[in-house]
Amino acid sequence: MKEIIHIKVRGYHIDLYGHVNNTRYLEFLEEARWTIKEKYFDFMHEHAKGLGIVVVSNHIDYHHAATLGDALEIRTCISRIGNKSAVFRHEIYLADTDILVVDAEVTFVIMDFNTGRAIPLSEEWRTRLELLLE
Amino acid sequence: MKEIIHIKVRGYHIDLYGHVNNTRYLEFLEEARWTIKEKYFDFMHEHAKGLGIVVVSNHIDYHHAATLGDALEIRTCISRIGNKSAVFRHEIYLADTDILVVDAEVTFVIMDFNTGRAIPLSEEWRTRLELLLE
Amino acid sequence: MKEIIHIKVRGYHIDLYGHVNNTRYLEFLEEARWTIKEKYFDFMHEHAKGLGIVVVSNHIDYHHAATLGDALEIRTCISRIGNKSAVFRHEIYLADTDILVVDAEVTFVIMDFNTGRAIPLSEEWRTRLELLLE
Amino acid sequence: MKEIIHIKVRGYHIDLYGHVNNTRYLEFLEEARWTIKEKYFDFMHEHAKGLGIVVVSNHIDYHHAATLGDALEIRTCISRIGNKSAVFRHEIYLADTDILVVDAEVTFVIMDFNTGRAIPLSEEWRTRLELLLE
Repeated sequence: MKEIIHIKVRGYHIDLYGHVNNTRYLEFLEEARWTIKEKYFDFMHEHAKGLGIVVVSNHIDYHHAATLGDALEIRTCISRIGNKSAVFRHEIYLADTDILVVDAEVTFVIMDFNTGRAIPLSEEWRTRLELLLE
Repeated sequence: MKEIIHIKVRGYHIDLYGHVNNTRYLEFLEEARWTIKEKYFDFMHEHAKGLGIVVVSNHIDYHHAATLGDALEIRTCISRIGNKSAVFRHEIYLADTDILVVDAEVTFVIMDFNTGRAIPLSEEWRTRLELLLE
Repeated sequence: MKEIIHIKVRGYHIDLYGHVNNTRYLEFLEEARWTIKEKYFDFMHEHAKGLGIVVVSNHIDYHHAATLGDALEIRTCISRIGNKSAVFRHEIYLADTDILVVDAEVTFVIMDFNTGRAIPLSEEWRTRLELLLE
Repeated sequence: MKEIIHIKVRGYHIDLYGHVNNTRYLEFLEEARWTIKEKYFDFMHEHAKGLGIVVVSNHIDYHHAATLGDALEIRTCISRIGNKSAVFRHEIYLADTDILVVDAEVTFVIMDFNTGRAIPLSEEWRTRLELLLE
C-alpha cells in the first residue's frame, strides 16, 4: 500500500538554478517517512527502548525540475524487507499529473542505540512493514 | 575582542530571489558561535555536566543581499553580559569591504538540561565571556 | 485577521540539544508567509513584474522548547503597515494549548528587482495587507 | 586527482538521534563540489552563457555515524565521464583516520537553461573533468 503526502514548493526550497535543490528533496522524503512512522509505528515507545529507524543508503534519481508553487505528491511504500534492513520506495509526482519528479530507494535498519548495532527485524516490525509492501 | 570566520556563498545558500535566504544567515551565525564555543569554552565538558548554550532570541537585520561567490566575513563578539543571559553581537561583511550584509544580536542562556532551567552565569563563564567583550 | 498553519515537529527539525533548532523556526515562519502570499497576493504576477517580498529584519524570541511530535500552530497577522515596509507578526503555539513556543516580528519590503530598490507600498498592496491587520 | 575539503560537525548538523542527519551530508557534498567548480570551472562565465551543473542522481551510503566535534575530510574525484553525464565520487572520512563515514556517487549533466536540456560534454569540459579523474 502506498502512503501519500503533499508538499507545496516554496521560495526557500529553491536554489540558484531556480528549481528545488537536490538536497531539499531528501527532507521531503524524511517528512513522508515521519508521517509513516507516526501512523504505523509506535516510535515514541521504540525510542524509549533505545531503538530508532536509521537510514543506511539514499539512492535518488531526479527526473523533472520542480519550481515555485508546484504541488508535489509523495508516494511511499516498502519495496523490500530483508533480515536486518528494509527499503522505502518513494516517488514524487507533480500532483494530478504523470510527471515524475524524483524516485528514490532509501534503505534503513532498526538501530539499537544501547549497543550501536542494527538488530534483526522482529516479527512485530515485519508485520508493520508488510502493511506498506507495494 | 572579535572572533572572525569566513564563509563563501554557494548555490545551495541561495533562494528563489537569487540571494542568500534570510534563514540561512542564522546557520552562518551558528557556525560562528560553534567556532567560539570550541575555542573559548570546553563545551564537551559542559555537555557532560548537562549544560548547554541555548539561544533565547535572534534579532537580525539584513542590509545587503549577498549572492553566489561572495566571500563573507563574520565578526562576532559579546556585547552584554547579564545575570542569567548574555548577548552575542554578529556582523557579516563582504570580505575586504565596508559593505555590511547583516548585523544581529543573539541572546543566550546557559541551560541546565537536568532541570530545564537557565542558570546564573558563574564566575568561570563570565571570565570566558569577557574575553569576547567588544 | 490571523492566518493559521500547522507543522508537526519531526526528527530532522531537532538539533543536538533535543529540541527544534533556532534556525529551523525561521523556515516555519517562511512557510506561514508563503501560505499567505499564495492566498492573498498574486505573487506569480508580482514576480513577473520583477517584484518580490523581501525580509529586512527578523526579531524572534524563543519561549518554550518544542520537541519530537509536537504539533505547532503558527498564527500570522500584519502588525504594522508603514510607507515602504510592513511587519508580519507570528506566534507559534503548541496546538490546543496556551503554551507560546516562539513569537516573532518580521519586517519586509516590496523589492523591485529591476532597480534593486524597495518601492513605496501601493494602494493595492495596502488593501491586501490590511486584510491581515490584527 | 582528489580534491579535499574539511568540515567540522556542529550542533545544528545533528538530528534527533544525536548524529549528523542523512540529509545534511548532501550539503557537505555540495560544498565540496562548489569548491571544485570554483577552482576548476569558470562557473560564473558558464552561468552567463546559461549553463549549469545539475545533479541527476545521488547514491549515498552511510557507514559510520558522525557526531558533534568530528572533523570530516571530504575527498572528491571524478569516477566516470560519459557522453552527456559524468560522475563525482565523494568519500567522507573522519580526518586522520581510516574510518569511512559516507561514500557517494553523484551523477550530473551540463544543463543548458536556455533550452532546458542537457548538452553533450564539450572537449573543454572533458579536459577540465579529466583533471579530477581518479
